[in-house]
Amino acid sequence: MGARIVIDTIGGDNGAEVCVEGAVEGLRQNPDVSVILTGHKKELDQMLSLYEYDKKRLTVIDCPEEITCHDAPVEAVRKKKASSLVVGLTQIKEGHADALVSAGSSGAVLAGAQFIVGRAKGVKRTPLAPLLPTAGNPSLLIDCGANVDAKPEVLVQFAEMGTIYMQNVMGVKNPTVAIVNIGAEEEKGNALVKSTYPLLKECKSINFIGSIESREIPNGKADVILTEAFTGNVILKLYEGLSKMLLAEIKSAMMATIKSKIGGLMIKKQLKKTLVRFNASNKGGAPLLGLKGLVVKVHGNAKKEEVASAIDQCYRFVINDVSGKIVRGFEEAAAAEKTAEEAAADNKNEA
Amino acid sequence: MGARIVIDTIGGDNGAEVCVEGAVEGLRQNPDVSVILTGHKKELDQMLSLYEYDKKRLTVIDCPEEITCHDAPVEAVRKKKASSLVVGLTQIKEGHADALVSAGSSGAVLAGAQFIVGRAKGVKRTPLAPLLPTAGNPSLLIDCGANVDAKPEVLVQFAEMGTIYMQNVMGVKNPTVAIVNIGAEEEKGNALVKSTYPLLKECKSINFIGSIESREIPNGKADVILTEAFTGNVILKLYEGLSKMLLAEIKSAMMATIKSKIGGLMIKKQLKKTLVRFNASNKGGAPLLGLKGLVVKVHGNAKKEEVASAIDQCYRFVINDVSGKIVRGFEEAAAAEKTAEEAAADNKNEA
Repeated sequence: MGARIVIDTIGGDNGAEVCVEGAVEGLRQNPDVSVILTGHKKELDQMLSLYEYDKKRLTVIDCPEEITCHDAPVEAVRKKKASSLVVGLTQIKEGHADALVSAGSSGAVLAGAQFIVGRAKGVKRTPLAPLLPTAGNPSLLIDCGANVDAKPEVLVQFAEMGTIYMQNVMGVKNPTVAIVNIGAEEEKGNALVKSTYPLLKECKSINFIGSIESREIPNGKADVILTEAFTGNVILKLYEGLSKMLLAEIKSAMMATIKSKIGGLMIKKQLKKTLVRFNASNKGGAPLLGLKGLVVKVHGNAKKEEVASAIDQCYRFVINDVSGKIVRGFEEAAAAEKTAEEAAADNKNEA
Repeated sequence: MGARIVIDTIGGDNGAEVCVEGAVEGLRQNPDVSVILTGHKKELDQMLSLYEYDKKRLTVIDCPEEITCHDAPVEAVRKKKASSLVVGLTQIKEGHADALVSAGSSGAVLAGAQFIVGRAKGVKRTPLAPLLPTAGNPSLLIDCGANVDAKPEVLVQFAEMGTIYMQNVMGVKNPTVAIVNIGAEEEKGNALVKSTYPLLKECKSINFIGSIESREIPNGKADVILTEAFTGNVILKLYEGLSKMLLAEIKSAMMATIKSKIGGLMIKKQLKKTLVRFNASNKGGAPLLGLKGLVVKVHGNAKKEEVASAIDQCYRFVINDVSGKIVRGFEEAAAAEKTAEEAAADNKNEA
């Protein structure tokens, strides 16, 4: 069985063009993938006519309505039933698709995923978990979504979901999990970290290695970087903002004099090779985990490479049944908890 | 009146040498400064014999005990009365000095500052507030200290202290204050930010400009970046870690081939000029605000430039009476609050 992936073609900064290009590229790379494009059919058909692709594996659904970043997310998702996002998510809900990729409004994508696709059984909250580029392999930063002020039990679930994702989608054998903290010692941290730390230590389904200070994140010290959504959002956006600013400063240094311009040309090739690893667009966007299906938010300014890469990510997610593994993991945990409670109750009755 | 500044010469990674060099440099730069070195007198006297400096303005106090980062901070400060840190802080407490600079254990410096120097009147908590390098002027990041899970009223005080600091030490006329948030809109955020935001809007002694997303921090969008200590610590350390990693990657790209090495040499001068602004050691360390005096924590690996720069920072802090301005600001606020309460009580009695 392959993977059926919806591409929402409305709402990204670069228009439907990059979605069409990315979809065609995705079909070429993965023979087991089929794609549904939701958006303005006439425009999409025109664009598609320029490409060669396997027509049996690509469908277009016409959606007259648009959701933009100016719409209030929850209201937009409720009212704009004929929008490319809502129609696409409904495809997953009704079993016609496995995953959706969108470059549209983050708020609307998160809200729509919750309302329309819905949480999988046993999942308390659905975290947004982008891959961060590091000096080593990319790390999964979980959670950067809308779950601010989350409880310790919720963070433990995030650690479990992140572990399953890294194993199945990124092929990491025994992914290490670290919690973001302000010191390496167990007794350090705020109230949330102090309550979560012992639960992570006890959790048997993850490979917990303790605290991570944020200065260590860029070194790729852990596969799964666990944190509450507010801090996660701060880390993600600072990562992007600081990298961008530093690279801009370096570029302007290279352009300062004729000598430095020539020097810049001479290191360009090597620099590009090094920096390509720090290009977020190769990482395929941020998956929203714990849904009955998969929703991937790519950057608003995503180009075709990021869309194609997101399709590849969805494909690996679907064929490795990550959603099913998450649900079964939580069912087993709930059953074990129940058995333990019953045993405790029996002991009490006997006493 | 000048400024009397203690340099704690024990506990830094680079030993007493950088403290001596920084102190001599500080004395040279600021004719109104006098310095007290606390540490191993014999060693310090030997080092000092290599330099020319105004001997009337430099004293050495012999301290046989050492506090290291392996000591439990609170216990170390309580028990090691003859350590360079405790002796130095006691100089402030007893009125013999105005400020102390230390490259030693952060925990011990923070704990010692609280216990020995003590909070100024009206101050609820004492924030650690380093200057962050940005594409524009440096921004004060307040708080990165030990006040995790702080209350909204505490954050408002931090905004006020940061404002006074930027006005008096950095010479910024009407410093802008922004609160770190996960979106630009007022209704975004976690519970703490949502409760603090309206209080900041009401606060008349600051120039509040709303939320700042972390991706904007490197652009220097605000003079005072307000945040709770956990997030602040994450921002500070990620800033340092990511800059370091990116620069290391760029350097290794330059060293990859003969061509890139030559190119690297050609841009070296310009690159250095650009990157010098991102060198934390020019910023003179992080002041701990709201004390009866000033304590500045410089990096563990501080070099003489950072020590000299910290001395300069202390000098401007002292001659501009920043501590006094903070205390008077809070006294006025408390008095205004009391008057308002009394007026309300009078109204009630009359009714």
